[in-house]
Amino acid sequence: MNSKTPVTVIGLGEMGQALAGALLGSGHPTTVWNRTAAKADELAGRGAVRAGSVADAVTASPLVVVCLLDYATVRAALEPVAERLRGRTVVNLTNGSPAQAAELAAWVAGQGADYLDGGIMAVPTTIATEEAFVLYSGDERVFAAHRETFEVFGAAKYLGADIGIASLYDLALLDGMGFLFNGFHHSVAMVLSREGASAVEFTELLVTWLTNMAKVLPALAADVDADRREGAEPAITQGLDVQLAADVNIREAAREAGVSTAELAPGTAILKALLAAGHKEWSAPVTVRHLRSGKD
Amino acid sequence: MNSKTPVTVIGLGEMGQALAGALLGSGHPTTVWNRTAAKADELAGRGAVRAGSVADAVTASPLVVVCLLDYATVRAALEPVAERLRGRTVVNLTNGSPAQAAELAAWVAGQGADYLDGGIMAVPTTIATEEAFVLYSGDERVFAAHRETFEVFGAAKYLGADIGIASLYDLALLDGMGFLFNGFHHSVAMVLSREGASAVEFTELLVTWLTNMAKVLPALAADVDADRREGAEPAITQGLDVQLAADVNIREAAREAGVSTAELAPGTAILKALLAAGHKEWSAPVTVRHLRSGKD
Repeated sequence: MNSKTPVTVIGLGEMGQALAGALLGSGHPTTVWNRTAAKADELAGRGAVRAGSVADAVTASPLVVVCLLDYATVRAALEPVAERLRGRTVVNLTNGSPAQAAELAAWVAGQGADYLDGGIMAVPTTIATEEAFVLYSGDERVFAAHRETFEVFGAAKYLGADIGIASLYDLALLDGMGFLFNGFHHSVAMVLSREGASAVEFTELLVTWLTNMAKVLPALAADVDADRREGAEPAITQGLDVQLAADVNIREAAREAGVSTAELAPGTAILKALLAAGHKEWSAPVTVRHLRSGKD
Repeated sequence: MNSKTPVTVIGLGEMGQALAGALLGSGHPTTVWNRTAAKADELAGRGAVRAGSVADAVTASPLVVVCLLDYATVRAALEPVAERLRGRTVVNLTNGSPAQAAELAAWVAGQGADYLDGGIMAVPTTIATEEAFVLYSGDERVFAAHRETFEVFGAAKYLGADIGIASLYDLALLDGMGFLFNGFHHSVAMVLSREGASAVEFTELLVTWLTNMAKVLPALAADVDADRREGAEPAITQGLDVQLAADVNIREAAREAGVSTAELAPGTAILKALLAAGHKEWSAPVTVRHLRSGKD
């Protein structure tokens, strides 16, 4: 007899399919539903039960994992089956804002169901590998009850009872990734202006460089926390003159390379704002304070 | 007798001091010069020869390493001692654009000296560690003649005879780092809106996440090269609808957190431009082509 919790997955985009596939792979009885039913074909072939309706899908399992495009789609899917939710646990891994998470959590609680909000920090192909982790927030007992199942997707990281914190961290991490990818696109575009340049060869250097530089971030974060806690001086600073000189050169090289410079504007604006505020040195705390000051 | 090449270091900002310190540490007879002489005190205490003038500094060694604020400062330092350069090798590690490198290279050649341009991919504290690498371009025989000395600073990477390519790669890598750091500042600012949030705890997740995501970049670069070589379809794509949905949520979460959203504008603009151009999917090649199209 299978002792693994039966799980329903609602939403079979690439990520939903990866989640359901991971559950099947670890022996969970798995029920799936998608508006376009054909997306369930492969999973059905691997043993998933294909629900004919959201109502059937919800009824099939005590644990319902939702992974749709946005929270509006989640509400549209769940509202017609509200009375089926009672006593179940809904885990919403759809990308959304903290306010949306709080609103949905209140609605689900109103139906007599438990609710956890979550954020998937993986791409579909890394689900169920060591590289994947998933953030959760909400009632810690609900998390603990299903933790073992959650570990099927990747490392399960519980962030707290504050229901919005998983989405906030999720979006903040995606935010950081967006900058990383924009930087990749922009720097590759610059290099390709050179006859015979190879994106692959440049990117090998870029990944080494960014991996090295990412190791500096924990010390910068410590400066930010120390600044907020006790107004301590930052340990890591750099002359704004050096940063602005490099900024001018990057812009000039982009122009020489025929590459758009609009992407550089926010970074330049931050350096100039710090200078205008009388700072001679860049540091992580002054930069973060500037971003939080509401002065765009 | 010391068989190591005598080296002069001109410019003793934090980076110049680190370079001179590394040379001293590996037994090179080292001469240093800085406009503000006091910056040489510590190095002199460790055995460096303090030159009284740029002329004396240049005359002291066959290999002259220059690390100043910008190329204008380099020209201002070297022009008065032009006639002392003949027969020596000038290695300029000052941050500058490819056009500036080409201009300086021509001037130095005109004085009968060899010239290499370079870019230091390290922070001063990682010079002479495994994390440092330095890019060089120019005459390969000149590079080969001094390679062993260059390895003192960190891994020495020769990029080619094209004199501008070391600065281009240097600036492109700094460009990528700028985006990484801007993403760090912005995502930390978002998280700190939450009562009791810790920049250090969040950054631990961020570094794991960004390190995982950086591993995707080589495959994206391969897509870019294949697109340019043979117009091949990219292997990695993602629906623009999914990306735009996340983008809206990130912006909304930043607004809820009271954090500036100006930094997000370029990323959003790229997604919208791709959509307006009729793309349904994001991929690295279409994004890089957009950045190179001159349409900001």
